Amino acid sequence: MSELMIPVGLSNRHVHLSKEHIDILFGEGYELTKFKDLSQPGQYACNEKVDIVGPKGTLKGVRILGPARGQTQVEISITDGFVLGVKPPVRDSGDLKDSPGVKIIGPKGEVELKEGVIAAARHIHMHTSDAEKFGVKDKDIVKVKVEGKRGLIFENVLVRVNPNYALEFHVDIDEGNAACLKNGDKVELIK
Amino acid sequence: MSELMIPVGLSNRHVHLSKEHIDILFGEGYELTKFKDLSQPGQYACNEKVDIVGPKGTLKGVRILGPARGQTQVEISITDGFVLGVKPPVRDSGDLKDSPGVKIIGPKGEVELKEGVIAAARHIHMHTSDAEKFGVKDKDIVKVKVEGKRGLIFENVLVRVNPNYALEFHVDIDEGNAACLKNGDKVELIK
Repeated sequence: MSELMIPVGLSNRHVHLSKEHIDILFGEGYELTKFKDLSQPGQYACNEKVDIVGPKGTLKGVRILGPARGQTQVEISITDGFVLGVKPPVRDSGDLKDSPGVKIIGPKGEVELKEGVIAAARHIHMHTSDAEKFGVKDKDIVKVKVEGKRGLIFENVLVRVNPNYALEFHVDIDEGNAACLKNGDKVELIK
Repeated sequence: MSELMIPVGLSNRHVHLSKEHIDILFGEGYELTKFKDLSQPGQYACNEKVDIVGPKGTLKGVRILGPARGQTQVEISITDGFVLGVKPPVRDSGDLKDSPGVKIIGPKGEVELKEGVIAAARHIHMHTSDAEKFGVKDKDIVKVKVEGKRGLIFENVLVRVNPNYALEFHVDIDEGNAACLKNGDKVELIK
């Protein structure tokens, strides 16, 4: 087995909220509360959940990830998109221009999001020291090989290097199920 | 572009029923009625639908594919499996040993299926003349390359050759969404 192995993190549907939208959905000055830490330092799953409403259907109880961000972002799978009746473009986090909107319903109010619904593009988080070991740099595009009955090679995988990141390959639930991946499975980086 | 291109067929959840189970679910001597032909000659989607009930949830209105088969087979995605609360193994069609069961509910009765729930293993249907052109034979294992933002290479793709088959690459909805595939998209066979 190669030395260039990376643990998998499956991203289920979730929402990042702006401070302004937290105020509307949960009440003025509300602070999100931590449910548990995520593998990326400083990032956490919140106890708070919201309903996401599209033209065709609703996803109930979608978890919020903290802390608050500059712009609200709803990350769903393409399968979720069929439930909602919206077509999320495959985008890197933060690249929301001309993406579709949805309605977000919280306990204290509603937000009609104009844009911000995406299917996250697959990517690898890496600490600076990992990048050295793997011989890659921030924004490199690599491949990731998965073994097994549903073995496949993911192409167009973005490498994101930061001294605050922990090594992890992020895919959504569609991609995880297509390759029979579970959280913590090890996959191989191919340059 | 290579000459070895194959059109994609996305398989949504569906059920193949035995004659015995058609009798129980729809009434003694009932004949399935055709909704539309499928791309594989002799295979058709039926007007009839059933509900599939697992320990955790229900998939309502799952379409039946005809004609009747020797053994009832329920094909779902792994995502569907989370809704039902069953874990479908990834299997070739007909290989049902020790797969999980579910309850099937029809308009006239119910069947407690002991086994038969699978996630279909990705495969290519080919006419004998296609196999000659592609230089492959029945039961070969090949790869399939998908281009685009969610580009990937599917490994472990089973080739099924038969004079009654039409050329098509079959994946389920998880796999299709993981690669942003739509029905009729062209993908490349790699030997």
